[in-house]
Amino acid sequence: MTRQQAVEETIARCRQQVNDAITEDLPVEHPERLYEASRYLLDAGGKRLRPTILLLGADALADVDPDSESYRQFPAADSKAVDVLSAAVSIEIIQSFTLIHDDIMDDDDMRRGVPAVHREYDVSTAILAGDTLYSKAFENILRTGAPPDRSVRALSELATTCTEICEGQSLDIEFETRESVAPEDYLEMVELKTAVLYAAAASIPAVLLGYNDAVDPLHSYGLSIGRAFQIQDDLLDLTTPTEKLGKQRGSDLVENKQTLITVHARKQGVDVDNLVESDSVDAVSEAEIEQAVGVLEDAGSIEYARETAREFVANGKAQLDALPDNEANDRLLDIADYLVEREY
Amino acid sequence: MTRQQAVEETIARCRQQVNDAITEDLPVEHPERLYEASRYLLDAGGKRLRPTILLLGADALADVDPDSESYRQFPAADSKAVDVLSAAVSIEIIQSFTLIHDDIMDDDDMRRGVPAVHREYDVSTAILAGDTLYSKAFENILRTGAPPDRSVRALSELATTCTEICEGQSLDIEFETRESVAPEDYLEMVELKTAVLYAAAASIPAVLLGYNDAVDPLHSYGLSIGRAFQIQDDLLDLTTPTEKLGKQRGSDLVENKQTLITVHARKQGVDVDNLVESDSVDAVSEAEIEQAVGVLEDAGSIEYARETAREFVANGKAQLDALPDNEANDRLLDIADYLVEREY
Repeated sequence: MTRQQAVEETIARCRQQVNDAITEDLPVEHPERLYEASRYLLDAGGKRLRPTILLLGADALADVDPDSESYRQFPAADSKAVDVLSAAVSIEIIQSFTLIHDDIMDDDDMRRGVPAVHREYDVSTAILAGDTLYSKAFENILRTGAPPDRSVRALSELATTCTEICEGQSLDIEFETRESVAPEDYLEMVELKTAVLYAAAASIPAVLLGYNDAVDPLHSYGLSIGRAFQIQDDLLDLTTPTEKLGKQRGSDLVENKQTLITVHARKQGVDVDNLVESDSVDAVSEAEIEQAVGVLEDAGSIEYARETAREFVANGKAQLDALPDNEANDRLLDIADYLVEREY
Repeated sequence: MTRQQAVEETIARCRQQVNDAITEDLPVEHPERLYEASRYLLDAGGKRLRPTILLLGADALADVDPDSESYRQFPAADSKAVDVLSAAVSIEIIQSFTLIHDDIMDDDDMRRGVPAVHREYDVSTAILAGDTLYSKAFENILRTGAPPDRSVRALSELATTCTEICEGQSLDIEFETRESVAPEDYLEMVELKTAVLYAAAASIPAVLLGYNDAVDPLHSYGLSIGRAFQIQDDLLDLTTPTEKLGKQRGSDLVENKQTLITVHARKQGVDVDNLVESDSVDAVSEAEIEQAVGVLEDAGSIEYARETAREFVANGKAQLDALPDNEANDRLLDIADYLVEREY
C-alpha cells in the first residue's frame, strides 16, 4: 500500500466516524424543514478533511494508534475521557454553515454535486439553516466532557475562527471589484477565509485533551496546510479536466476571481482581466481555457503557486516535530502532502 | 416621579452604558466595511431592553442600588469581580444579528427609522454582518472574567437560545403559508423567536455571578415577559396611529402575518384573510384598517390578547419573589409592566 493509499484509507475511516456522529449529534427534529435544510449539505458528502485532522491530532498527542481508542471517550493528558468526536463534528458543522451562506452570496447553484441549499429550498431557509448550524456547532463543542477551562478555551478558539472566516469572506468579495490585489493581501484573505478553520481543527484536540505545549505547533501546522489547500484548489481549477473537476475548468478565470496565480500573473504584466473573453461558464470553450492556462504557465504563475503551496506544506510538516513520533503523526504528515498532491 | 417615569429613566441610564460598551467591545476595524455594516443597526438606536434586564438582574442579585457598582467590575456571590456589561453587550449583539437576517428573509426595507442593512449595503454584506455579530457575541461573553464553569454555562445558555431563535423564525415563516395556526402553536413560536432571548438576558447574570438558585426563577421571568412583549408588539401594530408607530398601522394584517389576535379571531369564525383587501401597505387606507380593527374588537380578539399579555406579566413578576426585595427588583417589576403599557 502506498502512502497515498494509506492516507486515503485513513480519511475514509475518519469520514465514516464523523458521518455517524453527525447523524447522532444533529438529528432532524421539530421544526423538521429547518433541520432537513441544515443537514442537506452535510448529507450530500464531503471529504471531512478538517475533522479527520482533529481526530488524528488526538491520536498523535495521546500516542495511540489511529482508531485504537473510541473518539467518544478519548483519554486526555490527565487520563480523563473527552469526547473529541463532538468537537470534530463542530468543525464540520461550521464548514457546512459557511458553504451554505457563501453559496447565497456568490449565487452559486451547485455544491457537492447537488443544488445549493438556497436552490433546493429558498434563500430564507438557507440563511436560517446556516444560522442554526452556527449555534449547533457551539452547543456541540460544549458537550465533550472536557474540564470547563479547556472547554472555554476551545470555544473561544472556535468563536474567533468564525469571526476570521467572516473577515476573509468579506475580503474575498471586496477583491472581486478591486483593480489589483497584492500577493500578501491575497494570502491574508486565504488565511482568514480558509486556513484558520484548519488551524482550529488541528489545535483543538491539544486544547481539549490538555496538551498545552502542542497547541501552538498544531495551530501553525493547520494554518500552513490550510493555505496550501486553498492554493491547490486554485490550481486544480486551471489544470483538472472539466469532467474530473465536476464543474467547468477555468471557471475562476471566467468569473474574474482572484487567485494566487492571477495575482502573480498580473504582477508579471499579464492582462489577466482579458485572458478569457467569455463572461459565462456556459459560453467558454476548452480551447480558450487551454490558451489562457498557457499564458499563465509562460508567466511562471502556475509554477509560482505550486512552489508556494509546497513551501506551506513543508512549513506545516516541520511543526509536527513537537509531537510524539508515531503512526498518527505520520498520517498528519501524509495529509499535508495529500492536500497538494490530490487531483480533485 | 411616576413609576413609569422611573423605569424610563432606568432604561435610559442602562442604554447609555450599553451603547458606550458596544463602541468599546465592537470597534470598527479591518475589514472596515464589514464592521461598519455590523455596527450599522446597533448604532441606529434601540431601547436596549434586554441588556437593561441583564444589568438590573445583576443589581437585584447583588442587592445593590441600580448603577451603584461598575458593571465592568461587578461583585459576584463569592465577591470576585465579573464584567456583566460584556454579557449585556452579547445579548444586544445577538438581537441585532437576528434583526439583520430577519429583515433579509422578510424583505423589510426599514428598521429603526433607517434602511435595513441589506438595503443600506447589500444582501451579501448583511448576511456576513449578521454572521460576524454572531461569533462576536460568543467572544464577548467569554470576556466577563467569570470562573470557567460559569462561563461554560452562560455560553451554553446563549448557544441554545440562538438555536431556539432560529427554530422560532422558521416556524414564523412556515405560519405565513399555513391555513390555520392554533393559539398554542403561535405561543410556541413566540417563545422561541422572542421570549428565550429575554430569558437568557434575565438568567445569565445569575449564572455568571454564581447565584444558582436564582437562575430558574429569572429564566421564567424572562420567558413570561418576553411573551408579553411580543403580544404587545402585535397589539401596537393595530392600535397605535401610523405617525407614532413609524410604519403603517395594521401592516401585519396587510401582510397576512399571524398574531395572537388573528389566531384568536379565526377561531371565532372571523374571515381574517379578507379583513383587509389591499395587499400592500402603500395602498391600504386608514378607514380600511379602522374597520378591520373594529371586527377584531367585536370578536373579543383584542381583549383576549391584552388579557393574555397581562397574565404573562403577572406570572413573570411572581418569579421575582425568589430574589432579594430591593430597588433593582422593583425596577424589574416595573419593566414587566412597562412592556405591556408602552405605546410604541
